[in-house]
Amino acid sequence: MSSHTHIATNAEVPDVTRQLVDWIVDIKGSHISAEVRREGLRTFVNWVGCAVGGARHETVDRALAAVSPFSGKASSTVLGRPEQLDALHAALLNGITSHVLDFDDTHLKTIIHPAGPVASALLALAELRPMSGEDFLTALIVGIEVECRIGNAVYPNHYDRGWHITGTAGVFGAAAATGKAIGLSKQQMRWAFGLAATQSSGLREMFGTMTKSFHPGRAAQNGLTSALLAEANFDSSERAIEAPRGFANVTSTKQDYSEILDDLGTRWESALNSYKPYACGIVIHPTIDGCQQIRADIGDRVNAIKSVHLTTHPLVLELTGKKTPRTGLEGKFSVYHSAAAALLKGDGAPTAFTDEMVNQPEITALRDRISATADPECHEASVTIDVTFEDGSTLRKHIERALGSKDVPLTDDQVDDKFVTQSALVIGEDAARELLAISWNLENLSSVADVARVSAGRTTDQAKAG
Amino acid sequence: MSSHTHIATNAEVPDVTRQLVDWIVDIKGSHISAEVRREGLRTFVNWVGCAVGGARHETVDRALAAVSPFSGKASSTVLGRPEQLDALHAALLNGITSHVLDFDDTHLKTIIHPAGPVASALLALAELRPMSGEDFLTALIVGIEVECRIGNAVYPNHYDRGWHITGTAGVFGAAAATGKAIGLSKQQMRWAFGLAATQSSGLREMFGTMTKSFHPGRAAQNGLTSALLAEANFDSSERAIEAPRGFANVTSTKQDYSEILDDLGTRWESALNSYKPYACGIVIHPTIDGCQQIRADIGDRVNAIKSVHLTTHPLVLELTGKKTPRTGLEGKFSVYHSAAAALLKGDGAPTAFTDEMVNQPEITALRDRISATADPECHEASVTIDVTFEDGSTLRKHIERALGSKDVPLTDDQVDDKFVTQSALVIGEDAARELLAISWNLENLSSVADVARVSAGRTTDQAKAG
Repeated sequence: MSSHTHIATNAEVPDVTRQLVDWIVDIKGSHISAEVRREGLRTFVNWVGCAVGGARHETVDRALAAVSPFSGKASSTVLGRPEQLDALHAALLNGITSHVLDFDDTHLKTIIHPAGPVASALLALAELRPMSGEDFLTALIVGIEVECRIGNAVYPNHYDRGWHITGTAGVFGAAAATGKAIGLSKQQMRWAFGLAATQSSGLREMFGTMTKSFHPGRAAQNGLTSALLAEANFDSSERAIEAPRGFANVTSTKQDYSEILDDLGTRWESALNSYKPYACGIVIHPTIDGCQQIRADIGDRVNAIKSVHLTTHPLVLELTGKKTPRTGLEGKFSVYHSAAAALLKGDGAPTAFTDEMVNQPEITALRDRISATADPECHEASVTIDVTFEDGSTLRKHIERALGSKDVPLTDDQVDDKFVTQSALVIGEDAARELLAISWNLENLSSVADVARVSAGRTTDQAKAG
Repeated sequence: MSSHTHIATNAEVPDVTRQLVDWIVDIKGSHISAEVRREGLRTFVNWVGCAVGGARHETVDRALAAVSPFSGKASSTVLGRPEQLDALHAALLNGITSHVLDFDDTHLKTIIHPAGPVASALLALAELRPMSGEDFLTALIVGIEVECRIGNAVYPNHYDRGWHITGTAGVFGAAAATGKAIGLSKQQMRWAFGLAATQSSGLREMFGTMTKSFHPGRAAQNGLTSALLAEANFDSSERAIEAPRGFANVTSTKQDYSEILDDLGTRWESALNSYKPYACGIVIHPTIDGCQQIRADIGDRVNAIKSVHLTTHPLVLELTGKKTPRTGLEGKFSVYHSAAAALLKGDGAPTAFTDEMVNQPEITALRDRISATADPECHEASVTIDVTFEDGSTLRKHIERALGSKDVPLTDDQVDDKFVTQSALVIGEDAARELLAISWNLENLSSVADVARVSAGRTTDQAKAG
């Protein structure tokens, strides 16, 4: 043993966990405005489409091969697949499927992908313990609110240290949503937060591997586990967020608790959610948007491009600077591959990020002629693209904010197109449209489990889609 | 989004994960000396006794109530109980039972409790995939070696930040041991380390609650999950320990990789394991040892004690300074309660740390007359106890190193007594002695699962106890 520093309990620190938990347990669906509920519904629809769209990825096959032999009673659906697992394992798998294409949703202030951890846990639970669509949506919005507020409190220092914040903050969202759905008392909900905090994990080092999408999956599973243990009165710390050796102090050098406690119920972080138009790391999106616009402008002249130069914020290259990706998953973290695919194919969909596409000679040839400069003056959500053609002529495109950002949000129609495009590849177009319809109809469902059943082509008990 | 610092990849950093994994996969049982294997066997015997001794704790009942409904095919035993669960859940439960009394083993350089995460995962696996006692012991020793070396590399900074190192380092030990047992390739073992690193968690804030013993349980379960996913070729980072945003950099300000790589196979951290004689936080042990000696010296005069003053290292009060514990679990982190119970009852066993004992008037009356001073000059493993009697006379006892430390290790007979005393309360004395015998006979067992079966009073397939 060696010398130890002492962290004093700071009497000035508010009782963050207690106040947040009080709000979670007390809030009713009727306290949430129609506008906020509408954005929650868009979040849900987008998440279902992504979960089905990713359902056949090799990552999912391998995870299923490993954990299926350990599944308990099959109560809950792996969306878009025939397999059913116990609710804890279904939460894990749906968290993986909905994030594996990096095509899901983003809370831009923290780069949290909010729905994966929360909706995956909640829907798996809803197949075990029946839940109305209205109650489901309330719990989903509350869970996402908690997740994003806790993220705000520690971001960016927490993320910079190397934590994948979708996993680390997501587990709180999953615990809050499922804990609310099963009616935990305030005492139990505080314990659930203790259990969630002590399971909070996920390293950015895993980006570009199958383990990245494992993070929202495990956060969903761990959050649900936390709620179930607390329900059985398995006790824990009641000050998990703010204690001297609680989540915020241990995992970050920034602890802004006003981000968690201020304006609860009036300022809604969950309503700031955005939906990706492209299936890759979000900091690449301005580049893809710009390259697609260039392609639309110049047509066949894409074949006469000599070189491309990108000017971006440093974070873009830190996160997505892979020069020679070898796999589709690595391609999602290569701004070079993404630019080449957008210029040559006009593609930013999951089809642009397959192992085959990443290694296609035409694409790699252009990719290798794309360079980039990190400029701290450039905003993280912007990019300047300079194209030089074989004949020496040049073209410049500046993207201030990309499609999918809060300034240029996806319309409902674009959400629908994204949903059908990706899920039709997995379950066929008719089934995809049926699933889209029942997903939008969430608030009128007497049992949310119907959404899961439709995704897998099974008959619903009480389908009320209309 | 906000500004971000950049962590450069340091070309000087050795390929820690690769070298460690090569060693894990290549080492054979015959490479390990008889002395090191003997200490591994003592570790196993002590762990079995603790797992059975803790099996009926309320913490275990509540965990079982919560997770049993989600268990898959019942292959593996909760030691000392009739319940069987799937191997992943059995790993969780045995990690809880073996640590819940805070009576297990300690690697004193890091305060890691090594066996819980590793043995719990390995024995649960051995009931699913048959394993000889010899191979089991090799995997156990390798897992504990990995766990303690990774702990050494980041301790004390990692622990000081607030991480419960038994959980955070334990998950690597569990992944290494189970990965070796199922024959992972080097490629797969590196992935298993990526999966383990990204699940590494556990906060010291949870000390004194049921969630403390959840940590070794979840580390066991997560480590086994990592090995099983890697076996299914679920890929991950191959530089999980040393990458810029890998385990060591994200969770500590100290990264001494020589602690991991130097003298592999010759210096054995696993052979430094020690076994607790008292069922509470290890920094209290010198105080209990001293108070028991005082009681032995003064007999009935314990009833004439006016006050007691302890002089300890500051860490002792930081970790175990609870003045008025309310529960048995809190009592394990109260040097005041522990001293009072040792003086009045001569007790440091699990019976000293029940809810009833912690609230007994005679004990609380003496407890409230015990004070303590933190003295940085006092070694963490020492204590000075000053007793003042009603008649004004005084007595001083100094403990340099307590029973159970490496300087005063438990003999095999003392390990046996500890085993039988605690496990007889759960399964009866005859069964406890039968279990003790088969546990010592580990290396001659063709199937380690027999140990689990005997602990639960079931018939063994091929019991060879002798």
